[in-house]
Amino acid sequence: MNKTRLEAFSDGVLAIIITIMVLELKVPHEASFEALRQLLPVFISYIMSFVYIGIYWGNHHHLLHAVKQVNSRIMWSNMGLLFFLSLVPFSTAWMGVNHFAPLPVAVYGVNMVLAGLSYSILETAIRKHYPHSTALTEALKRQKKKEYISTVIYVTSIPCAFFYPLVSAMCFVVVSILWVIPDKHIEQALKEEV
Amino acid sequence: MNKTRLEAFSDGVLAIIITIMVLELKVPHEASFEALRQLLPVFISYIMSFVYIGIYWGNHHHLLHAVKQVNSRIMWSNMGLLFFLSLVPFSTAWMGVNHFAPLPVAVYGVNMVLAGLSYSILETAIRKHYPHSTALTEALKRQKKKEYISTVIYVTSIPCAFFYPLVSAMCFVVVSILWVIPDKHIEQALKEEV
Amino acid sequence: MNKTRLEAFSDGVLAIIITIMVLELKVPHEASFEALRQLLPVFISYIMSFVYIGIYWGNHHHLLHAVKQVNSRIMWSNMGLLFFLSLVPFSTAWMGVNHFAPLPVAVYGVNMVLAGLSYSILETAIRKHYPHSTALTEALKRQKKKEYISTVIYVTSIPCAFFYPLVSAMCFVVVSILWVIPDKHIEQALKEEV
Amino acid sequence: MNKTRLEAFSDGVLAIIITIMVLELKVPHEASFEALRQLLPVFISYIMSFVYIGIYWGNHHHLLHAVKQVNSRIMWSNMGLLFFLSLVPFSTAWMGVNHFAPLPVAVYGVNMVLAGLSYSILETAIRKHYPHSTALTEALKRQKKKEYISTVIYVTSIPCAFFYPLVSAMCFVVVSILWVIPDKHIEQALKEEV
Repeated sequence: MNKTRLEAFSDGVLAIIITIMVLELKVPHEASFEALRQLLPVFISYIMSFVYIGIYWGNHHHLLHAVKQVNSRIMWSNMGLLFFLSLVPFSTAWMGVNHFAPLPVAVYGVNMVLAGLSYSILETAIRKHYPHSTALTEALKRQKKKEYISTVIYVTSIPCAFFYPLVSAMCFVVVSILWVIPDKHIEQALKEEV
Repeated sequence: MNKTRLEAFSDGVLAIIITIMVLELKVPHEASFEALRQLLPVFISYIMSFVYIGIYWGNHHHLLHAVKQVNSRIMWSNMGLLFFLSLVPFSTAWMGVNHFAPLPVAVYGVNMVLAGLSYSILETAIRKHYPHSTALTEALKRQKKKEYISTVIYVTSIPCAFFYPLVSAMCFVVVSILWVIPDKHIEQALKEEV
Repeated sequence: MNKTRLEAFSDGVLAIIITIMVLELKVPHEASFEALRQLLPVFISYIMSFVYIGIYWGNHHHLLHAVKQVNSRIMWSNMGLLFFLSLVPFSTAWMGVNHFAPLPVAVYGVNMVLAGLSYSILETAIRKHYPHSTALTEALKRQKKKEYISTVIYVTSIPCAFFYPLVSAMCFVVVSILWVIPDKHIEQALKEEV
Repeated sequence: MNKTRLEAFSDGVLAIIITIMVLELKVPHEASFEALRQLLPVFISYIMSFVYIGIYWGNHHHLLHAVKQVNSRIMWSNMGLLFFLSLVPFSTAWMGVNHFAPLPVAVYGVNMVLAGLSYSILETAIRKHYPHSTALTEALKRQKKKEYISTVIYVTSIPCAFFYPLVSAMCFVVVSILWVIPDKHIEQALKEEV
């Protein structure tokens, strides 16, 4: 199995996930500022998850860069990642509709931890299949630190959500900013390869 | 007609099927554990069908591996398979929403039998067009046994659903586990080809 | 502009059109045969449109086979075709929900005529850009006859729908059968080219 | 990161955006002309946005033509563009459902300005990465004039919407016509390159 179809399928699923989230912005039947204002929490949660799916898409792309052939293990690890990401539209909308109430924020955190975990599993599956290290895989290893920090923040934000849900929501924003900042090492590694 | 667009179209349809199923997890307007608990049957049926579509996607990929040109017959067999898979979000949600009641479980079984049947038809159409056997087609032939067992379990689960619907649901899980376990022969055949 | 992205975009749109139609099969909250029976008209109209979109996808594929570069005119003719096909989920569901009532059946006919017309416009745009005739373009010319017959049947079915809507619906089925039957000439032309 | 996946992902998102808009054409449960007539404003706004997404897709294609490698900055500018375009189904439906009322028309204008702005940011990001000018980039520079005119019209249409919403809606139509007309320079530049 070559990786082209795995990428195409993953791109398709991620493109649909990122787009159907907007369907939760229910079109109000009044043309007032008030109607818009009520959508604000859903909108904010939408922006957050849009950025997250974007980050996962970018990282997924880097990760599969070195891959040529795909075995069963890689395929099913990838399906696991897509599964937890496919739950993001649900947990995003639940959090937004309930104005960042404790339980939905905690569930969003759980979703993020599980997505992160399944990403690590995919990473391990690929590394086992392609043990030869390149400039890119070296750069990816440095990303590990980012992954640990993110996981710690997520795991902390889950119990925190029951007391200060907005603090947990802020944690999610902090993690996303951490990832949007481009990684010099990866950019460099990709440049060298060209 | 070359196979690239057939694959791209099938990937697109499968990606959408697997993703729109999550829309049936209706976002509750309460932020309580109780609200989550009520979604549990829909969630369980979602996991089940997610795995099934994943299996079909993987098998579809293997099947089209040896194909280069696509004739009308292959194209329409493929459309038949996509049609029955496109009904999976409906039968999944119906089963989940009605908490695995007899009729929806039986209908889910019927859907699975028809999808399996249309997959066999596609397989036959491809084999007629590419009669020369390779390591991969040999490996695929061994999969036939799995297909027979699955069909027998599905067909049994349909009448069974009217008496013990949960037993039928367990049968579906058993079949999915049967297919998720990677097939040594196919992995081997693909490795040899590289 | 090369044709790869035009094909990818069209495949994406067609894959989504064919799949979101199933969302109109609203999941009933009862687990009874009666609930299923009430969905029958929507289901029948779904099958019909699934076949139509499949036919358009296949023809679109053949049509773009000879194309290498895409100009503005081809791009916008293609958008026109996609626009009228994007209305098919609406007219299909309206016809099904209203149990093949006169007006929705007529509107479905109008939708089909407009889709057919925009397909002809795309055909003309491509032929102007690629005037050199090949075995495939010769075969496509013979398809013209099929197109004329289809258009005549569609146009007739529109006024007919106000008196005998079921006769018009049968006409749609006849046209779809006409197109599913593989065209010997095209198959031949494609085979020669390989 | 090479551009293939960026294009595939963008095509997927744009294909879904253009298609899910039709879901806002809620299928009426009556089979009357009156029911159709009530959908007219939503339908008109759908046509408008369909054309806009088509224009963006075409321009996006031209813009990425010269690109070979994608850096973080280009990737995130592209995500920004996709984000604002993903809001188009919402603002389109809101405008249509409320029969082109002042506030929704103004919000649609704001959406268009932001989409245009994020497109310019993507353009700049690409130009910085590929400073060497070609026939195509020269042609794209001439498009700048069109972009300025569009932005001026959009920005004017926002306050105008609160007094004459239909005039603002007409402005949107004028801008779309401006862009559908093929650009001789770009066509020429693309032809020369072949």
